[in-house]
Amino acid sequence: MINIPAAKEKLYLGIDGGGSKCRALIVTGSGQVLGTGSGGPANAFADLEQTFVSIQAATEFALHEAGLPLSSINQLIAGVGLAGVNVPRVFDQVNSWQHPFKQLFLTTDLHIASLGAHRSDDGAVIVAGTGSCGYSHVQGRVSMLGGHGFPAGDIGSGAWFGLEAIRAVLLAADNLGAPTLLSDLISQHLQAKGVAIVDKMAGAKASDYAALAGFVFDAAERGDDLALSLVKQGAAYIDALAQQLWLTNPARMSLVGGLSHRLMPWLAPSIRERLSPPLDSSEAGAIYHARNMSQLGI
Amino acid sequence: MINIPAAKEKLYLGIDGGGSKCRALIVTGSGQVLGTGSGGPANAFADLEQTFVSIQAATEFALHEAGLPLSSINQLIAGVGLAGVNVPRVFDQVNSWQHPFKQLFLTTDLHIASLGAHRSDDGAVIVAGTGSCGYSHVQGRVSMLGGHGFPAGDIGSGAWFGLEAIRAVLLAADNLGAPTLLSDLISQHLQAKGVAIVDKMAGAKASDYAALAGFVFDAAERGDDLALSLVKQGAAYIDALAQQLWLTNPARMSLVGGLSHRLMPWLAPSIRERLSPPLDSSEAGAIYHARNMSQLGI
Repeated sequence: MINIPAAKEKLYLGIDGGGSKCRALIVTGSGQVLGTGSGGPANAFADLEQTFVSIQAATEFALHEAGLPLSSINQLIAGVGLAGVNVPRVFDQVNSWQHPFKQLFLTTDLHIASLGAHRSDDGAVIVAGTGSCGYSHVQGRVSMLGGHGFPAGDIGSGAWFGLEAIRAVLLAADNLGAPTLLSDLISQHLQAKGVAIVDKMAGAKASDYAALAGFVFDAAERGDDLALSLVKQGAAYIDALAQQLWLTNPARMSLVGGLSHRLMPWLAPSIRERLSPPLDSSEAGAIYHARNMSQLGI
Repeated sequence: MINIPAAKEKLYLGIDGGGSKCRALIVTGSGQVLGTGSGGPANAFADLEQTFVSIQAATEFALHEAGLPLSSINQLIAGVGLAGVNVPRVFDQVNSWQHPFKQLFLTTDLHIASLGAHRSDDGAVIVAGTGSCGYSHVQGRVSMLGGHGFPAGDIGSGAWFGLEAIRAVLLAADNLGAPTLLSDLISQHLQAKGVAIVDKMAGAKASDYAALAGFVFDAAERGDDLALSLVKQGAAYIDALAQQLWLTNPARMSLVGGLSHRLMPWLAPSIRERLSPPLDSSEAGAIYHARNMSQLGI
């Protein structure tokens, strides 16, 4: 019970919403961590209603871990960074949400990733999770690269790796493509062989494909030629994103997101050496955003 | 009014349902064409309810053209070939439809394409429209290749060309890919530039992507390197499908579907020379199917 904050202390909520999951962090005004939680997908472009459900669920888990009653949700000053709100129409839709918080300060998942990674507005990040995207914020100037979503964008992302893996497995099943270890790994995971995989993946979303990305790295690490070529293609795109982002002269650059640890070893050494580890999480970045904004007296 | 059939004459309906549209043909028992019609998408795997709506609409247009009252729909002996019913679960779903016809004989779009192209069960077809697929039927033995659908399957199909085109345009917009004529052609068509294309294509289906395929061929014919590489990649896959299908020893092989005329010039000469023009349409093939089946006394 030592976590219960003094009655007058402010409570901040940080939300990091991505294509596969949503993370929540509750801290006091003095920076003490009270609780964390997670929920389902929160890409506001892909599914607005699901996003609200996932934010609410992650927040309730964090309140529970903090030992706070659910009713205290209306005391939270929320910083919320979401995938998909870079589209103005979607930003407006989220902002008109009748949210349960005391205040809600909305921004992109990229902005909070950068705020977390550098403890500052200035810097660059490459986010590689369900999607992939580059972002730099240097002296008030914001640049964004990629992040165009599934299925046409986001090379080197989890969803891209998963889609290319399924393509390769189906080609191999028809003897129209090279045999690959991915056939075994993915058949086992999906409990379906060959073209029966099509039925299993019917209506699959970006997050469903992203759940398969790890197998591509597993197979590449075991020397599978097809998986190696996919990993090299994905890593080359992330290299190219980094190269373009360096042109904006950020003081630091970090690679973050659920796929960052798998991708890192495959980046060109010249790119990898210039990357800095993120200082804080994206959820923490969301809390920096809430603090910065609420200090503006909004 | 010369088209009104004798009171006792049978009326056959042939339906060819694909990912972008559905075609209907009504003929008399003696083979006289009474009317044709078309409706929206009819891929039963992708959207079952839409498929029923599209079949109904195409049939009503054909009845209208035939000068027959809509109420005579219950006199039609329907042969129906649909994309997506190669999946057993989907075949069963369509078969349990409370259809408005006198009888309905269901089979795959590939089967009716082959029946139409060769006026026989025996032969092979490659269907390249919204999707792509290979099919051969030789002495009672059926082989199928590809046809795994959007977005993971069907290289060389309209949907595949459209998706690859959007990928290329987005990469070019970020300076992460080669510039291409496709940027201009697709921007003009969608009335959106660069990353605004992402919003235009939000939730796009296979048929929406397939609507862009023609631009890839237009750009390739004007010498655009990127479009050329896509067209060559798509054509090489169709070549590979044909090569595998020849191994089943069909008497004839035809390339059919909405993209067949655009693809044909890009196939390897050795493949192209062995292809025969289809003798009849797929809708006509659907009518052959209905006749064959109803003669079995079912």
